[in-house]
Amino acid sequence: SILDVIEEHIGTKESSSYYNGKHILVTAGPTRESIDPVRFFTNHSSGKMGYAIAETAAKLGASVTLISGPSNLGVPNGVSRMEVESARDMYHEVFRHYDKADIIIKAAAVADYRPKETFDQKMKKQEGSLVIELERTEDILKALGEKKQKHQYLVGFAAETSNVIQYGREKLERKNLDAIVVNDVSQENAGFSADTNEAAFISKTGKQQKLSLNSKVKIAQQLFSLIEEDLKGGEQ
Amino acid sequence: SILDVIEEHIGTKESSSYYNGKHILVTAGPTRESIDPVRFFTNHSSGKMGYAIAETAAKLGASVTLISGPSNLGVPNGVSRMEVESARDMYHEVFRHYDKADIIIKAAAVADYRPKETFDQKMKKQEGSLVIELERTEDILKALGEKKQKHQYLVGFAAETSNVIQYGREKLERKNLDAIVVNDVSQENAGFSADTNEAAFISKTGKQQKLSLNSKVKIAQQLFSLIEEDLKGGEQ
Repeated sequence: SILDVIEEHIGTKESSSYYNGKHILVTAGPTRESIDPVRFFTNHSSGKMGYAIAETAAKLGASVTLISGPSNLGVPNGVSRMEVESARDMYHEVFRHYDKADIIIKAAAVADYRPKETFDQKMKKQEGSLVIELERTEDILKALGEKKQKHQYLVGFAAETSNVIQYGREKLERKNLDAIVVNDVSQENAGFSADTNEAAFISKTGKQQKLSLNSKVKIAQQLFSLIEEDLKGGEQ
Repeated sequence: SILDVIEEHIGTKESSSYYNGKHILVTAGPTRESIDPVRFFTNHSSGKMGYAIAETAAKLGASVTLISGPSNLGVPNGVSRMEVESARDMYHEVFRHYDKADIIIKAAAVADYRPKETFDQKMKKQEGSLVIELERTEDILKALGEKKQKHQYLVGFAAETSNVIQYGREKLERKNLDAIVVNDVSQENAGFSADTNEAAFISKTGKQQKLSLNSKVKIAQQLFSLIEEDLKGGEQ
């Protein structure tokens, strides 16, 4: 199978790899949305899935740019990493690198909401409750889908806790994606901080494949094998 | 000076250390307050200051319990660490260890607010803005001050971005502390993620001492030297 072939090539940077010389843009990690200089909203993303994808892409010979929210992970070998903090930063950095990308894999868990107002000084505590008004952040994936060019293949991620496949299909359609990887983050051993993941790959062309529980690096390898198949139009 | 003597003893666990056999309870790190299974509020605390305090206390021969919010730091040698997530967890864990503690150093940056409601499923995005109602978390430091016994010495921390000394003195009084360490987190090289810190120590007995820019371990050593002086009633 293609997967075996790719796995054989992993680490050897075979020039015959389908991905050799391709530009791959990967996003990873959470974003942080500041309330004041001390407090912020964020999410449980560790960045591990995105980093595994970037690492695997580099091993496959691609030219890889990784745009990462705050993460404790080191830069994978052969990957060019740009660090960002907020959804707004992520948006700008992604579009700085979008045009030259052949494949874009948006594994970052970008915050959907940010405080409408960010305070320059630390907010003082008060008795009783407090209301914070949040506004929507830039929808990066949607913007990428809208500006996608013919030569570009766009992969989104969805992290859901219920109806994961159905939600994934809708998101694929709505955001003009070529493929989506849907995680059920309510599962043990899957999702954010785990070293393993269990997901489903759904493509615009109708392919749907379960990615069984495996290390995030193995999942990344399977992902590239599925993208290759999909891009080759299933000639295999 | 006492500081020199203590510094000489660091790492040797001299049985003549003032702290030998004392029970020291240290809190460190941020807390996380969940909005749903994916999203949460938190703050920029890295835990570094609290971990440096715990490490130093262990080297001084104390019996050290470290109660830590989410942090990537390893357990310091000779320290018993308990990991917690939310302010509520921190509150319960601290009081489980409070009675036997001689010195309590609350370096954790516990969230002041948490969402009034936590959702079991990931909240769906909606168009437009969103209002989140927050409620106050348990005031751990205040509760410690209220329940403090004669043999106990309670040290708080304050992380401020303006009027740091004045705010520190007020907090010392209001929370019935024996001492407070006030940081100006708006300074470069101080506060949350930095390896260095710059702060002021203020005691109930009227001592006020600047802790100049230094590594967090050095600041921790100075802190124990000041606490020792203060507990000995300034006989030095």
